[in-house]
Amino acid sequence: MKSKDLTFEEYVGRVTDFHGGVDPDMIAGWFMSDLAKQNLPNGDSLEAICETAHCLPDAVQILTPCTIGNGMLKIADTGRFAITLFEIKKGEGIRVFLDLTKLDIWPEIRCWFLKEKPRHKQDLNMVIEELKEAETSIYSLERVKIKPEILEAKRKNTSAIRPCPSCGEAFRTELGDLCPACRGKGPYIER
Amino acid sequence: MKSKDLTFEEYVGRVTDFHGGVDPDMIAGWFMSDLAKQNLPNGDSLEAICETAHCLPDAVQILTPCTIGNGMLKIADTGRFAITLFEIKKGEGIRVFLDLTKLDIWPEIRCWFLKEKPRHKQDLNMVIEELKEAETSIYSLERVKIKPEILEAKRKNTSAIRPCPSCGEAFRTELGDLCPACRGKGPYIER
Repeated sequence: MKSKDLTFEEYVGRVTDFHGGVDPDMIAGWFMSDLAKQNLPNGDSLEAICETAHCLPDAVQILTPCTIGNGMLKIADTGRFAITLFEIKKGEGIRVFLDLTKLDIWPEIRCWFLKEKPRHKQDLNMVIEELKEAETSIYSLERVKIKPEILEAKRKNTSAIRPCPSCGEAFRTELGDLCPACRGKGPYIER
Repeated sequence: MKSKDLTFEEYVGRVTDFHGGVDPDMIAGWFMSDLAKQNLPNGDSLEAICETAHCLPDAVQILTPCTIGNGMLKIADTGRFAITLFEIKKGEGIRVFLDLTKLDIWPEIRCWFLKEKPRHKQDLNMVIEELKEAETSIYSLERVKIKPEILEAKRKNTSAIRPCPSCGEAFRTELGDLCPACRGKGPYIER
């Protein structure tokens, strides 16, 4: 895997610049990416899945070649705090998740992770310190196999392009006769 | 707007490192982001929408403070080649799109944009040269107002977290009694 190899300090710098600030999720993302990478076979055709859209995708984008725009990072929102790196030919990979059963000796992490206090009442710097001290000890790994429909979704991205008869803008014809925006499914209020 | 101010050469370097290579979409993304930023009022609470998941989100992530992981970039897939920067309080913004009606004098861009030839039969370097020469002349702008449900989706991200009774992992309770993965909606094949 071509890796964006960074030291921890370089990573923190990138997080500040790219993500806008260093929060506990991004520190966890460092150790989770590290664990996933260490346990994968070598190969050039690796991709990633994040099981939450919150923060973790940015750790993956900074630390691996997988980004949203290059199609190598997918978000499959199960609401769980986990990332997976997988080899696309076989669809086999390593899933890393923050393991609740390993948090008994880390009260600040546990409180943050389970939102036991409102965010503004928790000292995030203490959470970050515990995350750094715990290193990779609070995560668990499992081998996973990716659903074929997820692997195939990318290979099929060959849709033709033509102008929408309503707005006149070019769009992917696979999405219908009119573009989704002209069918009321765009993000804007109609005028 | 706190901006990731880069020169074009610095941007190309970041694209190579982050996105994995410089393609026409990423060059278009440079000019589109520039146009959107120039036409927005100043403000610190700007966010972005990409109307495609293909490439353009990476241009936005490199050139603006908006990323997938920090929640300031949303993908609303209308299949159109457009980005929007908007002010979150009023929900008003500037949408920039590649304008088909402006492509008559740019045959390489037109051929690439409408996929008139298979990708492997088109010289992408010539497309990139035309995109650089055309600068911002091939895009159009419109003022848009963002749907309230999109603006509110972020504000409501306060879901409680608890362990899934099936897998034991913590997940956002708003997603159901069991986590989506334990309801067959995860990205992995069950074992």
